[in-house]
Amino acid sequence: MFKLDERLQRDTFPVASLPLCELLLSNNAHYPWLILVPRREGITEIHQLDHADRDQLWRESHQVSVWMADHFQFDKLNVGALGNVVSQLHLHHVGRRKDDPAWPGPVWGHGATISYLPEQVEEIKSAFPWTTAFVG
Amino acid sequence: MFKLDERLQRDTFPVASLPLCELLLSNNAHYPWLILVPRREGITEIHQLDHADRDQLWRESHQVSVWMADHFQFDKLNVGALGNVVSQLHLHHVGRRKDDPAWPGPVWGHGATISYLPEQVEEIKSAFPWTTAFVG
Repeated sequence: MFKLDERLQRDTFPVASLPLCELLLSNNAHYPWLILVPRREGITEIHQLDHADRDQLWRESHQVSVWMADHFQFDKLNVGALGNVVSQLHLHHVGRRKDDPAWPGPVWGHGATISYLPEQVEEIKSAFPWTTAFVG
Repeated sequence: MFKLDERLQRDTFPVASLPLCELLLSNNAHYPWLILVPRREGITEIHQLDHADRDQLWRESHQVSVWMADHFQFDKLNVGALGNVVSQLHLHHVGRRKDDPAWPGPVWGHGATISYLPEQVEEIKSAFPWTTAFVG
């Protein structure tokens, strides 16, 4: 049975359950930062997913990316699966601005953090169009 | 016309021309580090590729990942498209070891670099099975 990693659970807010993945919002208001976690037990690498799951992961990643580019203001999208600290497979989507604290370096391992206010989380969750774009 | 970014060209060795991408070896012997660059002009984000190109990018990424896991020794594969410094779309595949200089942080922006010897580059290039797995 799939169980979300405890650190991912602690550091994020749930946004939506997509066909393959849980979509999470990283609790760091410095960056628009969404994370896809395939509901597959024991998977740590993208290439361990079977072909159908990989196709679906990239479909969901594309939809998240397009939505982020439409909804947030940023200069560059960073997409990556690292997993050096949390090994459960998870795919980051981080909107980067040239005036953000970590630019041009990566956000992972950078200390700057601002927690969201509850109403900010609700605004993002309610704006996410999962009911139309992501069914099926 | 597609032209490889000058910094990518300077910091890598060409390994193979795959159906969509140039496959490059990062000139840093600390990590097995391969980079896919789609031969598409003016593209900076994965989600700007059309559907067929995205499918092909992920197919090539999968084949590179599986080959790296088979050929090199590492504990975790980091896959990511950042582009904060070099905006031309390029997708990193970095094999990470728990005793590598940047672990558990990301390699991007980490200063440790060891240039390859020419014979090491040739060994990696000749081991890459592009003639069988990557045609078509």
